[in-house]
Amino acid sequence: MATMFAPTYLDHNATTPLDPRVLEAMLPYMGQRFGNASSRHDYGRHARAAVDHARQQVAAAVGAHPTEVVFTSGGSEANNLIIKGVAAVSKPGCIVVGATEHPCVREPARQLQRAGWTLSTAAVDESGRIKTSEFDALMTGTPRIVSVMCANNETGVVQDVASLAAAARRAGAVFHTDAVQALGKIKVSFRDWGVSALTVSSHKIGGPMGAGALVLDKRVDIAPLIAGGGQERGLRSGTENVAAIVGFGKACELATADLHARSGRLADLRDGLVAAVSRMGAKVFGAGAERLPNTVFFAFERIDGETLVSKLDRAGFAVASGSACSSADPRPSATLLAMGVDETLARGAIRVSFGADTSRDDLARFCTTLEETVNGLRTLAAVAV
Amino acid sequence: MATMFAPTYLDHNATTPLDPRVLEAMLPYMGQRFGNASSRHDYGRHARAAVDHARQQVAAAVGAHPTEVVFTSGGSEANNLIIKGVAAVSKPGCIVVGATEHPCVREPARQLQRAGWTLSTAAVDESGRIKTSEFDALMTGTPRIVSVMCANNETGVVQDVASLAAAARRAGAVFHTDAVQALGKIKVSFRDWGVSALTVSSHKIGGPMGAGALVLDKRVDIAPLIAGGGQERGLRSGTENVAAIVGFGKACELATADLHARSGRLADLRDGLVAAVSRMGAKVFGAGAERLPNTVFFAFERIDGETLVSKLDRAGFAVASGSACSSADPRPSATLLAMGVDETLARGAIRVSFGADTSRDDLARFCTTLEETVNGLRTLAAVAV
Repeated sequence: MATMFAPTYLDHNATTPLDPRVLEAMLPYMGQRFGNASSRHDYGRHARAAVDHARQQVAAAVGAHPTEVVFTSGGSEANNLIIKGVAAVSKPGCIVVGATEHPCVREPARQLQRAGWTLSTAAVDESGRIKTSEFDALMTGTPRIVSVMCANNETGVVQDVASLAAAARRAGAVFHTDAVQALGKIKVSFRDWGVSALTVSSHKIGGPMGAGALVLDKRVDIAPLIAGGGQERGLRSGTENVAAIVGFGKACELATADLHARSGRLADLRDGLVAAVSRMGAKVFGAGAERLPNTVFFAFERIDGETLVSKLDRAGFAVASGSACSSADPRPSATLLAMGVDETLARGAIRVSFGADTSRDDLARFCTTLEETVNGLRTLAAVAV
Repeated sequence: MATMFAPTYLDHNATTPLDPRVLEAMLPYMGQRFGNASSRHDYGRHARAAVDHARQQVAAAVGAHPTEVVFTSGGSEANNLIIKGVAAVSKPGCIVVGATEHPCVREPARQLQRAGWTLSTAAVDESGRIKTSEFDALMTGTPRIVSVMCANNETGVVQDVASLAAAARRAGAVFHTDAVQALGKIKVSFRDWGVSALTVSSHKIGGPMGAGALVLDKRVDIAPLIAGGGQERGLRSGTENVAAIVGFGKACELATADLHARSGRLADLRDGLVAAVSRMGAKVFGAGAERLPNTVFFAFERIDGETLVSKLDRAGFAVASGSACSSADPRPSATLLAMGVDETLARGAIRVSFGADTSRDDLARFCTTLEETVNGLRTLAAVAV
């Protein structure tokens, strides 16, 4: 069977295949145009021009000015940079993060807490949306840093970033949003949202691993995480990863060029999948909220998520039991627990996330296999009882 | 002229062309094998296996155990990680760095100083070698962190890392060496040198940009610079840059496989170039010390380095006026000033650094052009006077 050789990939929130057009844009910089962008000769100038062009592409994709783009090695670095970077130039104060943030926001916030900061968590409701009244109450504590993700990596739930940013701004805080999962799936706008800082990542949108950016309002003072040669206006030293940055720029261009049409098609696929798994008896998480068009996070009662993922893998479908980044972690999804989901049900969670290359047929085959697998596991469970 | 289209590249200490065999090893991971190494399905397992294999290749190249390799986005990140990572789990104490360290060691050390640490600089002699007696005196101050590079990026001067490490260890310090410029040019051995930590970088040895490693003795406690998903034993979160790591591993294998023969050939080229520029009246820096086989750093009296680099660039030769990372910095080389070189002469410095692809003919043509250019500038200077 063909699927045994190339399993159907339904884990685009973990990483995406590199778009062949992106690879094509990168290859010259992995060949003749290999220069260090800081070098003052022909090779260096070509590299610098390529980085500058990519900076314009990234800025255009997120509604920012090119000079606001700080290239990093990826989303985790950008999230650490804004949180620790602001903290490094402040006295200990208060930091507020959303209850369903990615570990690369939660962990830096905990590091600040250990260094004397007050860490508050902005609660979410059962559909995964930030509770506005509680958030507003936290803002009265004059936090210095507020970080709430744009779209959740597991549930796909989208927050009202513009409103949260406005409230945080009124409180005098630096407001940051992790837009890693949002870019290329919904419209992202640094300027319109009125955020102080925003994180994006290349490999979630058909670009290469190894590139990301912190888009940063220049009025926000931060210290670099990686100090040295002074690249990226002194905010991120280290030789620019030219080929990856070029690929990131190209991926940004592609991801936003046909966003409306692609999102509409993905949302149709999502709604079909939601209907199908609901018919099978699954609980779909965050179903009451606005969600990314490509993500369905669900669970079946009394069926373990890890087991299901493993069986689906053997049957030729690549899905996740939670965020890939924490899949070595045996605890159930922190996102679901924050949403008040029962721990037993949370252990059953599996995430299907698709991309531009996912077809209606892929999902139809997936649903057939899923139903067979779930029925098989239920039979086993019944026998065991 | 062919050289106008592909200038002769003599700036390998800034970055190196990607070895075609490395690119070949990477391409599958930029194609079908695009998975996230943390994913628990077929795509993820292939990525994980590739990262594990590369970890073995890097460990073998530096004489360490694979579990001691912490992948980073490059050398600057690794240098920041060790310095700030140790500091984050210590009370402010004393840090000692070599006088000719790269900015990505000097700057983190200064950040520590601003946070209450005592920063001491280990002086070098006129040939660029650490002065042993002064270094030993600094060790009596019981420093917590000592960082001295293995080989200098500008002069190529090689330090006696094993002796310095032994002295630092006796003083109870964490001893780190930046071996970015050493790897692939001289033998690097984490174990034999007895260092606590060692930095290497991919793009200086024919590998891709975007990968590097901190090789770390597990007894050294450090906090991560990038916290989050818990990759790299919790010491460096963020999705592993699989293709770049695979390329780094392959480049390590290639760089050490024929080290002895390649180094010998490069040293012959270097000695020929030293003799030639000396005949033209240049002062060669660090000439009295053991140096990398591929690096010649020199200056002509009353000739500006930037001007010379620019003229050589137009004539089809890519060389550097100092380290690429700080080429936006108008100050003369900090390395040369630390060696007691007169500031005027230091402003004349140019660096020629070659690689496996550099031929005797390349250097012969370079020398002809250099002599013509220097004579032309001298004539201009004479006219101006």
